[in-house]
Amino acid sequence: MRQVRLVIVGFGVVGQGLAELLVTQRHLLQTQYDLSVTLVGVATGRGGYLYREQGLDIPTLLNLARRGGPLTVDALNTDVQHWPHALDGLRESHADILAEATGTNLRDGEPGLSHVRLALTQGMHVITANKGPIALASTELFALARAHNVQLRVEATVMAGTPVISTICEGMAGSSVRAIRGILNGTTNYILSEMAQGRDYSEVLSIAQAQGYAEADPTADVEGYDAVAKLLILASTVFGQILRPEQVARYGITAITREDVARAQQEGKRIKLIASLRYDGQTVQARVEPVSLPFFDPLATIDGVMNAITVETVALPQVTIVGPGAGRLQTGQGLLADLIAVARASS
Amino acid sequence: MRQVRLVIVGFGVVGQGLAELLVTQRHLLQTQYDLSVTLVGVATGRGGYLYREQGLDIPTLLNLARRGGPLTVDALNTDVQHWPHALDGLRESHADILAEATGTNLRDGEPGLSHVRLALTQGMHVITANKGPIALASTELFALARAHNVQLRVEATVMAGTPVISTICEGMAGSSVRAIRGILNGTTNYILSEMAQGRDYSEVLSIAQAQGYAEADPTADVEGYDAVAKLLILASTVFGQILRPEQVARYGITAITREDVARAQQEGKRIKLIASLRYDGQTVQARVEPVSLPFFDPLATIDGVMNAITVETVALPQVTIVGPGAGRLQTGQGLLADLIAVARASS
Repeated sequence: MRQVRLVIVGFGVVGQGLAELLVTQRHLLQTQYDLSVTLVGVATGRGGYLYREQGLDIPTLLNLARRGGPLTVDALNTDVQHWPHALDGLRESHADILAEATGTNLRDGEPGLSHVRLALTQGMHVITANKGPIALASTELFALARAHNVQLRVEATVMAGTPVISTICEGMAGSSVRAIRGILNGTTNYILSEMAQGRDYSEVLSIAQAQGYAEADPTADVEGYDAVAKLLILASTVFGQILRPEQVARYGITAITREDVARAQQEGKRIKLIASLRYDGQTVQARVEPVSLPFFDPLATIDGVMNAITVETVALPQVTIVGPGAGRLQTGQGLLADLIAVARASS
Repeated sequence: MRQVRLVIVGFGVVGQGLAELLVTQRHLLQTQYDLSVTLVGVATGRGGYLYREQGLDIPTLLNLARRGGPLTVDALNTDVQHWPHALDGLRESHADILAEATGTNLRDGEPGLSHVRLALTQGMHVITANKGPIALASTELFALARAHNVQLRVEATVMAGTPVISTICEGMAGSSVRAIRGILNGTTNYILSEMAQGRDYSEVLSIAQAQGYAEADPTADVEGYDAVAKLLILASTVFGQILRPEQVARYGITAITREDVARAQQEGKRIKLIASLRYDGQTVQARVEPVSLPFFDPLATIDGVMNAITVETVALPQVTIVGPGAGRLQTGQGLLADLIAVARASS
């Protein structure tokens, strides 16, 4: 049985989702993948870095986190080592894989960027759902991974656990990708879908905020910044092209009116916030913008919080992948698939 | 640069598609995958097995095949070794990977089954688009591959190069798959899509035959046998469950009338030939049958020769993959992706 020692840094929705799957899928991992995963470390902003050589008890961690309590030495009631800062704990303890699951920060990528950088430098594989470090520093981080002969896998950064990056880069390996178009943000797709029922933008935004689909400050979603980050990640992983955020033409959905949506429907079309990359073999053109799609477009009928992506290659003119783009277990599943891929390749 | 020595057995549409991609994608394979592929052998029923240690010239082979000429020693006009039968050539020459691309035979899997069996026994990796051997003998063949420490990859057997098997087994690794539902046969989907325009079954079948979408004897498609074969392959690769063809409840589309199709449309539904697997953790239920799908079902709007598959797992309630299910380059691309996966894993 392959033994993997895992650290999860960031124990919010995504970190908890991965931890929960490590419990529910433990038998499957052993029988189908010959894989035994021990969670040896967990770090949060409030509780610092907790490490236990023989492994931490995941149900205890999940119970504490769900009750809103900080993950501290006292709360865990067991023999753990403790460092106030995750970076110190990562530096002074030992594990095979870091799951980086702190919140996305699109300004400077921190604190995730420092966690990923340190782990790779120490020879740890890294799997992450954190868009910031990959959107802003993929060149440096993938080079670090190569230099230290470890893997950096980022499936969960785009469409959560719906397999997109691995499907394009591995499942469609060898094909010349010409273009990618996607609905990569669930919040805006939910808003536009509800507006298609005849509601105003501001009314739907309030409902979305009340239901937890939109944040109190919805700027990152409705102005397209979240979709931009995902495009930067796809440009790097699929095309090997590094873009800066300001190189993406970006238009949000805040100016879309109920009348715009109704007019599109009368023309047999649907307005969607489309994130796209077009590659001519030399450079990549990136755009995030509302587009009126004809009804037969595979992205036109993707409604609610679902995400979808269409890939055009020479041999495969149109392949579309539709699935969830967020959620606790949905995103945790993306990290789990990457964890298994790391274990398979490094055994 | 990794060197791969390839043999293609069966040089019809699919074998030629792979060969064509080896030429057009040669630069990409070298730069992006550090991979150099040499086609050392090619076999056809008429011409036997041709082998050249230093590699065969692919454009010459493609030219000959397109002109309908047999691939013979004389026609190639170069120094090649020749065996009248592929099995003898495979046994007495040397290559790393067999691409098995002879026609599908769902009765006994031959001649593909013997080719795959021999290659694996000799320690060659096998990639194949041939449904017969995998649908009928996957237990034996995957065990042979394990025993000889080589890979058997079958992506191109289901939905051509649209990545389905790798997406479920690798991209969604670690998830507990509960069910799969798909439109896995392009011919019947084309016929049903055209019937939705108000035409009769027999009229549409004639058009499909004239356009090359349906064969002169359409039984394998319209009675559901082709979809059954794909279900057997998915049952084995996704669930590790071996089914015999007669264990699949099978209903074709020949009894569907124009009136049935019109009635479904009036109810806001679409009739599709749905192939499904449902897994309860112990056994798998397999069905191929026409189903009236509500319009919001992701499979309801898949029209023409497109294929699609929806996967339900615990963490990912619904992931759908839509893409081509046949075609020269489309199927060749599935073999190419598998070839790259083999080379990556065995380097």
